[in-house]
Amino acid sequence: MESNKLDELWHRYEAFKNRGLKLDMSRGKPEKAQLDLSLPMLESDYNFISEDGIDVRNYGDTTGIPEAKRLFGELLGIPANQVIVGGNSSINLIHDALTRALICGPMEGDTPWARIPRVKFICPVPGYDWHFHMCETLGIQMLPVQLGASGPDMEEVERLALDPEVKGFICNPMYSNPSGITYSDQTVDRLAAMKTAAPDFRIIWDNAYCVHHLYENDRDSLKNIYEACAACGNADRVLMFASTSKITFAGGGISAMGASPANIARHTALLTYQLVCYDKLNQLRHTRFLPDRAAVEAHMAKHAQIIRPKFEYVLEVLDSELSGIGSWSRPKGGYFICYYAPDGCARRIVELCREAGVTLTPAGSPYPGGFDPKDSTIRIAPTLPPLSELKLVMELFPLAVKIAAAEKYK
Amino acid sequence: MESNKLDELWHRYEAFKNRGLKLDMSRGKPEKAQLDLSLPMLESDYNFISEDGIDVRNYGDTTGIPEAKRLFGELLGIPANQVIVGGNSSINLIHDALTRALICGPMEGDTPWARIPRVKFICPVPGYDWHFHMCETLGIQMLPVQLGASGPDMEEVERLALDPEVKGFICNPMYSNPSGITYSDQTVDRLAAMKTAAPDFRIIWDNAYCVHHLYENDRDSLKNIYEACAACGNADRVLMFASTSKITFAGGGISAMGASPANIARHTALLTYQLVCYDKLNQLRHTRFLPDRAAVEAHMAKHAQIIRPKFEYVLEVLDSELSGIGSWSRPKGGYFICYYAPDGCARRIVELCREAGVTLTPAGSPYPGGFDPKDSTIRIAPTLPPLSELKLVMELFPLAVKIAAAEKYK
Repeated sequence: MESNKLDELWHRYEAFKNRGLKLDMSRGKPEKAQLDLSLPMLESDYNFISEDGIDVRNYGDTTGIPEAKRLFGELLGIPANQVIVGGNSSINLIHDALTRALICGPMEGDTPWARIPRVKFICPVPGYDWHFHMCETLGIQMLPVQLGASGPDMEEVERLALDPEVKGFICNPMYSNPSGITYSDQTVDRLAAMKTAAPDFRIIWDNAYCVHHLYENDRDSLKNIYEACAACGNADRVLMFASTSKITFAGGGISAMGASPANIARHTALLTYQLVCYDKLNQLRHTRFLPDRAAVEAHMAKHAQIIRPKFEYVLEVLDSELSGIGSWSRPKGGYFICYYAPDGCARRIVELCREAGVTLTPAGSPYPGGFDPKDSTIRIAPTLPPLSELKLVMELFPLAVKIAAAEKYK
Repeated sequence: MESNKLDELWHRYEAFKNRGLKLDMSRGKPEKAQLDLSLPMLESDYNFISEDGIDVRNYGDTTGIPEAKRLFGELLGIPANQVIVGGNSSINLIHDALTRALICGPMEGDTPWARIPRVKFICPVPGYDWHFHMCETLGIQMLPVQLGASGPDMEEVERLALDPEVKGFICNPMYSNPSGITYSDQTVDRLAAMKTAAPDFRIIWDNAYCVHHLYENDRDSLKNIYEACAACGNADRVLMFASTSKITFAGGGISAMGASPANIARHTALLTYQLVCYDKLNQLRHTRFLPDRAAVEAHMAKHAQIIRPKFEYVLEVLDSELSGIGSWSRPKGGYFICYYAPDGCARRIVELCREAGVTLTPAGSPYPGGFDPKDSTIRIAPTLPPLSELKLVMELFPLAVKIAAAEKYK
């Protein structure tokens, strides 16, 4: 780049910085208008009896009320009696599933994973930082595998699964955090059918964005992995998770796990003395507001109306300002746009943004241990700021990219 | 007993049985009128901003909103910044604390308990069956120690604590389930001061009935164990738990853990990647309804008005019908009356009741493994049935006791 062009970039950067803004784009949070969509849910009709005749205000129904199981059964694509409905966090349900495997073993008779020297999980990258931090906290060694347009490099996944210490695989299979990709049918089939050296291998299928489409007529679709696993005789291989965190309230939703009858029986047995019941008032509140998949889809269309313009705005700016500098995803759903900077520039870009008042997700966080080998992936989370603020961020972002690229490749 | 007297008992028993009743006294559940006391809590004022400016409907405040920490700080007797506020189950918080110790170690640098050959806990008996089932599920070996009027046999507790495999102690210290006893100041002081061979020894202080008095002017009081531990240089020894399960809704309350700054820091670090946040809508709902200890006390007086007559009725019947046959507790709070049958009779009494249509808590359940060495302890849970039903149960119970005793000691 000519030095007067770089000077001009710096000049515009400093001008932005001098406005003293403080903007946060670091996390995939819904904005206020999205939260307001679910306010009617908080009006109680003071009928607290669930379909099985239980007063939800009291103890009982440890694995969830029937109507909530049915709802998540529809969302996950599994019979209602193969669902456990939990509290407000599907991440917590994943954590519980992993701690049970570690302390008690995935099934009765399996060696608890905490009793064996090493437990490894296959982790498609870029991926969801919370998954990686959780594995690290629980002492699970992570094996990153590159995600492509149709899912992880399956040759590599199949190779790694032949190591008996490799006990699992953890992912967002649809509108993946942060890449936005959705696993192809072929990827799902290979995951379901592949040989695993560990008989107690588990796929943690965190389907966090299962109904989170941006467009009504241009959607990804995800093959039902439970059915694929069952068809291969591997019904116990997969644990599927979803929640309403980005359907109703991020801080007050409900969550669920769907799995084979044997897995559900095992988890029910271990859950019984973990707690007396989950918050059934909130389960009932949810199912009265969103009784079935059709109600959820209609509700999600309202979310899409709010957030779609933000996604489109970010893409417009990237297209017009950064053509030829890096690349980016064009997701049809989920919560993130992924910008792949020229190699070696991601950390510098995030730093430049921070110094000018804009907090992005730390570079590297979509990788185990925070280590992005190419220092390239940046997660853009357009949902939280109102469009007016997002426009400010998108004034800065291309400047930061161009400066970092010029510094690196001068 | 003369045989015509026994015949008469059987005759009355059969007459009861022929009424074909189905009554459940097996669990310590609140009755409907108690649940109705908290209905005003469900009216939202649509102000969702917590004291620290967070929209509780969104992510954030992983360890709880400030007003909920302050409330539980008052109930537990600990500064608000030494409190983590959780979801609807304190049993789940206890479970989480134990799984963290097992997988990660109680503190950074401690050996995870799942990596050592054996972990043992001291369990005062009779005790809370859920504690025992949880320990069993998690592979923790239980060492029962007899409870007396002022707490467990402390000579025995102190002796057991000298075994390095003994990593903890778990109890309800106040209005204990099922005995109703409250630990004396001296018991608390000895627990706080005793030598433990394990430096990472933890007391699980499940203060489930901390504000659950039956009488306004005749109450037990419990010494603050955290202060007692801190005074002995053992601040990290105790983890204190409470919940609103029997204050607001058993199926939709909030819960908390209070502990030393070092414990709170450790649990916060491990909690951060277990979930994104607890249900803060429910935390705010609770603190708007019950902002401080005074509000809780006033609310608990209403509960006492509903359940006190039931406790008094049970005691009246026991006093008038079973004088000289077994003995029983006279609790000043909590949820249970404990009937100590003549040795060897408890299981038979529960069986006779069940056959005549009344489900009691299984005999033996207040002991690890369900084994009551004297086959004597029966937990009576008077709260769930309305008084009219309780009167039916208390027609049957003395008959069952007298028949069982006559069979055993004829």
